[in-house]
Amino acid sequence: MNIDLIHAAAARLEGQSRKTPLLSSPFLDEIAGRQILIKPECLQHTGSFKYRGGYSAISALNKAQCKAGVIAYSSGNHAQGVALAARQHDIPAVIIMPNDAPAIKIANTKALGGRVIGYDRARENREDIGVKLSNEHGLTLIKPYDEPQVIAGQGTTGLEIAEQAAMLGVSKAQVLVCCGGGGLTSGIALALAEHAPEMRVHTAEPENFDDTARSLLSGERVVNASSSGGMCDAILTPTPGEITFPIMKSHCPSGFVVSDEQVLMTMALAYQRLKIVIEPGGAVALAAALFCKDTLETDTVIAVASGGNVDHKIFQRALKTLN
Amino acid sequence: MNIDLIHAAAARLEGQSRKTPLLSSPFLDEIAGRQILIKPECLQHTGSFKYRGGYSAISALNKAQCKAGVIAYSSGNHAQGVALAARQHDIPAVIIMPNDAPAIKIANTKALGGRVIGYDRARENREDIGVKLSNEHGLTLIKPYDEPQVIAGQGTTGLEIAEQAAMLGVSKAQVLVCCGGGGLTSGIALALAEHAPEMRVHTAEPENFDDTARSLLSGERVVNASSSGGMCDAILTPTPGEITFPIMKSHCPSGFVVSDEQVLMTMALAYQRLKIVIEPGGAVALAAALFCKDTLETDTVIAVASGGNVDHKIFQRALKTLN
Repeated sequence: MNIDLIHAAAARLEGQSRKTPLLSSPFLDEIAGRQILIKPECLQHTGSFKYRGGYSAISALNKAQCKAGVIAYSSGNHAQGVALAARQHDIPAVIIMPNDAPAIKIANTKALGGRVIGYDRARENREDIGVKLSNEHGLTLIKPYDEPQVIAGQGTTGLEIAEQAAMLGVSKAQVLVCCGGGGLTSGIALALAEHAPEMRVHTAEPENFDDTARSLLSGERVVNASSSGGMCDAILTPTPGEITFPIMKSHCPSGFVVSDEQVLMTMALAYQRLKIVIEPGGAVALAAALFCKDTLETDTVIAVASGGNVDHKIFQRALKTLN
Repeated sequence: MNIDLIHAAAARLEGQSRKTPLLSSPFLDEIAGRQILIKPECLQHTGSFKYRGGYSAISALNKAQCKAGVIAYSSGNHAQGVALAARQHDIPAVIIMPNDAPAIKIANTKALGGRVIGYDRARENREDIGVKLSNEHGLTLIKPYDEPQVIAGQGTTGLEIAEQAAMLGVSKAQVLVCCGGGGLTSGIALALAEHAPEMRVHTAEPENFDDTARSLLSGERVVNASSSGGMCDAILTPTPGEITFPIMKSHCPSGFVVSDEQVLMTMALAYQRLKIVIEPGGAVALAAALFCKDTLETDTVIAVASGGNVDHKIFQRALKTLN
């Protein structure tokens, strides 16, 4: 995994992925006590950064692989990213999704042409199902984060952050990234190490699912006690990836952890002040930027709002925090 | 009023206004039966395109005018745009707002440094109050639409649409614009006439406040029966502007009219499919793009989502249409 793969992915994604803007609000700056810049990947195609990685991986396949098709497992955002990218390349896609994934994510994946196969998150192992089906049908498995071409695609988010921050005169900043398996974090870390070396990337996670923060602290990959039940469905991976963790370990000083209540308040503030819709798992980085002010250090903090595919009952719960 | 003023405004706004992206969703294309591109000015500073016009006008003032300060009347979005632009230029701003304006708009205007003076929309005339205070205190009145530098600022939205659509290979399209007094519509119409001559600009308005559609039909400025009570507070102007109407008359073939129910459904779809928050008055153009399919003609329709400053009770009403 290296910066050249990210540059190559950026070339393939040119004109395909959306260049999301860098947003801000004086009202959020006031809450945070510093300048906050938000990279709203909820505005990306399929409503999350995952389209970048899905398109990057599929556009790197050879003809034989394209003909056979692809398979992916995902709680929902990678599913939609792979489904749309596969449709754009006119190749079949099988997607393994947990039965308790948000209804909108399952419905969207199907509508984008993905053939969805459900599984029980508590009882079954999605990796095993993925490898089995991949072997049986000759499908190329596109892992959600432990795959160099996927990390490369997510890393293009970092290239844009470096360029857009520079245009605002910002070279030094802590960059907070919502972290599940670490594909987005490690991709952005590699991109910024090359193009904005004064920036420092930190992970952000919800309470009880802070495997990356604890892994960065101990230097070893540790596992969450629970693998389901949290509100931030998009980032409830059990442990950092095999490929992503060494990258994060060498580039990310530490991880931030936020509460579900802070996540809901952040979703409401993003609605009110930025006019964007973010899902719980996509709100943890901005939540840390707004509410962890004592442990943050830089005058400017950049937060990635990684996705916006939220069932509206949860969104309405978030809006209630404004009352 | 001419294209040179728009180009000059674009130069002053460079690095100040946000270049909002052009969004799309395969799910919206399916509803509309054609390609729909959305220009989300809800993502602009202060949550609406009005910042462009406010900044354009204030950045064109001379030193003496800056020292005395500015005054504006507005239902809320122009208020916030002028207040922020005035603060950025370090000059005082008095804003005349109707007492029944959405609470968030009044609160934001004050928080951005504007000195807010309330009035009764049914009983008092805001233009009279504006002229009186302007004369008494030597303040420069920045009208919300009948002011060339304001129209020029709003017109920069059109320059971006022309450039961004061209990058997607789109040169021919109907462009639907949410219309109150016509500042945004006439600015965009002038910009596109120069830079995307195959595009046609149409207004969009809510039922019972369709003064522009009826004025375009009759060739004369007509007045709405009521001046308050509608859901689309941002665009409830009584009649098209003196400066804006002749521009619209020569560039806009016709206007679209949508129902409040269509507006609420559109706000919900924008939330669900685009991950953006739009207010009722900012949703009428996209509502026309989605629901007036039989009277639209081009394969691609571009809709401006002009603002996102909505009280969350109305937003929650919109979300209920998804159930």
